[in-house]
Amino acid sequence: MGHMDIAKKLSELGWTLPAAPKPVGAYVPAVRTGNLLFISGQLPVWSGKLIAEGKVPSDVNVEMARKAAAQCAVNALAIVADELGGDWSRLVRVVRIGVFVQCEVGFHDQAKVANGASELLQEVFGDAGKHARATVGVNALPLNAAVEAEFLFEVS
Amino acid sequence: MGHMDIAKKLSELGWTLPAAPKPVGAYVPAVRTGNLLFISGQLPVWSGKLIAEGKVPSDVNVEMARKAAAQCAVNALAIVADELGGDWSRLVRVVRIGVFVQCEVGFHDQAKVANGASELLQEVFGDAGKHARATVGVNALPLNAAVEAEFLFEVS
Amino acid sequence: MGHMDIAKKLSELGWTLPAAPKPVGAYVPAVRTGNLLFISGQLPVWSGKLIAEGKVPSDVNVEMARKAAAQCAVNALAIVADELGGDWSRLVRVVRIGVFVQCEVGFHDQAKVANGASELLQEVFGDAGKHARATVGVNALPLNAAVEAEFLFEVS
Repeated sequence: MGHMDIAKKLSELGWTLPAAPKPVGAYVPAVRTGNLLFISGQLPVWSGKLIAEGKVPSDVNVEMARKAAAQCAVNALAIVADELGGDWSRLVRVVRIGVFVQCEVGFHDQAKVANGASELLQEVFGDAGKHARATVGVNALPLNAAVEAEFLFEVS
Repeated sequence: MGHMDIAKKLSELGWTLPAAPKPVGAYVPAVRTGNLLFISGQLPVWSGKLIAEGKVPSDVNVEMARKAAAQCAVNALAIVADELGGDWSRLVRVVRIGVFVQCEVGFHDQAKVANGASELLQEVFGDAGKHARATVGVNALPLNAAVEAEFLFEVS
Repeated sequence: MGHMDIAKKLSELGWTLPAAPKPVGAYVPAVRTGNLLFISGQLPVWSGKLIAEGKVPSDVNVEMARKAAAQCAVNALAIVADELGGDWSRLVRVVRIGVFVQCEVGFHDQAKVANGASELLQEVFGDAGKHARATVGVNALPLNAAVEAEFLFEVS
């Protein structure tokens, strides 16, 4: 799949592929080892601002948190685009995603939130977008983001 | 090791190998890349119900939470069995497990809980069951599970 | 880089390479699969005691928590030294680190804390120390540690 195709596919889904987000600490956006490409934990940042800040569901409802998880995935794809020099034919598949939801005690719909990222990846990549996943709730996230997600891809 | 042997070994330990659990979201139970088999985060589900719900130690005591962690491992093995077509000789070793314990602030025995999964894997696979591990507490988990655990295996 | 060089480099930075820490549960310090070396979650232990206990920032301030994260990295390097038989030329690079900060609700500087580990790895290994990272807050950690960090290295 070419870069234009992925950008177009995202656009059809209502998303824009941004410039690859800068890390918020002393790490790098991605590291490749063998055929594995590890993407650092992404926050739901768009145009330099968090689109979902605080706890789910009190500050951020589930629908908005889903969108935030999808934004994390879009941001990860921007980094993958950079790493692959825009050559999406080198992306073999999504392997695993880890999703952390900043939430209240007593909230148990983390899976619905994480589906925002998972469904986007499958809409964009089809079967190659299917992945293993671990999703948990946490009491606090960097910059007060409502969601953080990390990604592991297989590339060639 | 054949499939019957693993099922028998589990049975001797008091466990039954279930049908592979269905994901609770838009992801797949397992993804293989190279010789690595990533298993999604497992909840302590048995016969369609959580065997440990709520926080450790107030709602679920440490002994029960240990059992729940072991159930997560058993469920992961059901998925591995599926992936390997029942041919356990293709399982090389357990590489890493990640264990998340839903707990009260002030609870610090997460390692004892996670040992439920770790000890089961070593009882079943011997040296090949020894693994790296990261164990933490969290304030909330999907479906109000007391424990969630993800697994990484090396296969051939 | 030879073992003495790493020990000397750490010493220049004010750290001492300890004996490899023992696991606090039924797991092993490290597992190698292919060229990947997975290091179990490390706690900020020095001379058998936690150097940072409790929550950030109420019990442990950010500066101390940064130091604790660096201690986790130093302890991981002690395990790597063991695994490589002291032959650091076999370390290719740091791939990923996962950092868990035990913190109060409302604390959002987890990245500053995790930088303690990230900066140390880059000071020691230069470009080979640059890594992908996922950093989150949690409500509780094993033994009441303020920080836990796990590490993934590429080795040859």
